[in-house]
Amino acid sequence: MDTRPIGVFDSGMGGLTAVRQMFRLLPGEDIVYFGDTGRVPYGGRSAETIVRYARQDVAFLLGFDLKAIVIACGTVSTTALDVLKRENAIPILGVVQPAAKAAVRASKTGGIGVIGTKATIRSGAYEAAIRAIQPEAKLTAKACPLLVPLVEDGRVKRGDPVTERVVEEYLSPVRAAGVDTLVLGCTHYPLLRDVISDYMGAQVALIDTGEEAARAAAALLGEGDMLNDPAREGERRYYASDSAEDFAATASLFLGSDITDCVERVAIETYPSEEKA
Amino acid sequence: MDTRPIGVFDSGMGGLTAVRQMFRLLPGEDIVYFGDTGRVPYGGRSAETIVRYARQDVAFLLGFDLKAIVIACGTVSTTALDVLKRENAIPILGVVQPAAKAAVRASKTGGIGVIGTKATIRSGAYEAAIRAIQPEAKLTAKACPLLVPLVEDGRVKRGDPVTERVVEEYLSPVRAAGVDTLVLGCTHYPLLRDVISDYMGAQVALIDTGEEAARAAAALLGEGDMLNDPAREGERRYYASDSAEDFAATASLFLGSDITDCVERVAIETYPSEEKA
Repeated sequence: MDTRPIGVFDSGMGGLTAVRQMFRLLPGEDIVYFGDTGRVPYGGRSAETIVRYARQDVAFLLGFDLKAIVIACGTVSTTALDVLKRENAIPILGVVQPAAKAAVRASKTGGIGVIGTKATIRSGAYEAAIRAIQPEAKLTAKACPLLVPLVEDGRVKRGDPVTERVVEEYLSPVRAAGVDTLVLGCTHYPLLRDVISDYMGAQVALIDTGEEAARAAAALLGEGDMLNDPAREGERRYYASDSAEDFAATASLFLGSDITDCVERVAIETYPSEEKA
Repeated sequence: MDTRPIGVFDSGMGGLTAVRQMFRLLPGEDIVYFGDTGRVPYGGRSAETIVRYARQDVAFLLGFDLKAIVIACGTVSTTALDVLKRENAIPILGVVQPAAKAAVRASKTGGIGVIGTKATIRSGAYEAAIRAIQPEAKLTAKACPLLVPLVEDGRVKRGDPVTERVVEEYLSPVRAAGVDTLVLGCTHYPLLRDVISDYMGAQVALIDTGEEAARAAAALLGEGDMLNDPAREGERRYYASDSAEDFAATASLFLGSDITDCVERVAIETYPSEEKA
């Protein structure tokens, strides 16, 4: 048994979709979450800047005595995971490998779509991970830069004409390619599940990267005898780089529960962003 | 005559619409521009974070021997101008006062609309500035949180179905209020001038806040005998907090000219963000 908390971070609020799954799969675990709401979104920034920001996010979390870190962010997982693993001894899980495995498992035809931020699609990381398992997979990838701003603006419901129009535009080449599985390659996207599923059709399996990362974390900790007592109720603390009040107010949309009084602001820019020797 | 450069800053690329007007109105002036592309957009962030970021932007510019600073950003002008003026001796111009004067001058009916980011509309700064000149003005203000992401994504042209749908949604209450003048209260919005004008109708005057700020800067420097020789061609240097290459590539959209090799990256998070004593 390992009673230390798990660290989780994201560019903003999206990673809370993974935290919600961790509540379900890892109820006894303490969680320390950092959301970089003062610098969200990451997905349109350069790889260099994403790596610098991710180093600061990890440096903040390492101030706690953690047993593992989950990168609940598609952009960081696709663009900075290798650097972060190389520079840190603590186990670090991204969302790419678990989602790639789940997509290959789910697909009957090998036709798999991947959607994500510009940085995620530019990296090609999901495609590489899927091809490493199933070389003959037929992949269709599409960058969807407006989906994070839409989710952060709370425009996630069926019937929102702008969201429906944007989803249709991004997904039309993916639907036309005839995929039977679609990787939601950004932890914001599960909030758009209804709109995306309506457009793609119920026969297309949607892979929730946050959920798969939570499953992978549960498996990793279980195999290493690193789980906390599952009968206890885990403590959760939240940190954000913009206003704690604003974070708490929006977090309910993602978590389905109130976290007022559990959020603190962090001056993330004061943490080291340079390469570790 | 004062040969020192003018400093200009914005949360990202939008302030370049003001710089373009400065080329025209102040051709002899040297300009140092900073765009905080590593942390754009500001408009959805808390007032506290906007003030901290604006302090760092000014601290970076003060490393040059400047004669004045133009805040080419609606969000900073509405949310942090008073703090920045109080804490710094250098003349600092925002976009609010010049735009308010221009709006009152342009309006025949006193019906004036104001659009901007969430932070800008929350501040009420444009409305207060307009009412200070014309207390009986009939004002309609509307936050337009998706317009900056659309502009930064390059979706500015007539015929873009998403942009047209978003503009229609935001502006329908403004049009219904029967305004004859609309303040484009964010320096990104002039790039959407065609789409906005098509929806509002040609009879509605659009106030370009960057253009008005450039005019106010020209007037301030002219009155104080602080202009450089207008016969020379000013030098322009650009700094950005994300990739210099990405900045140069997108800047052409705003400036209509190529600035490759004139851009450098700045580690803006290393500049002081705390209140000045």
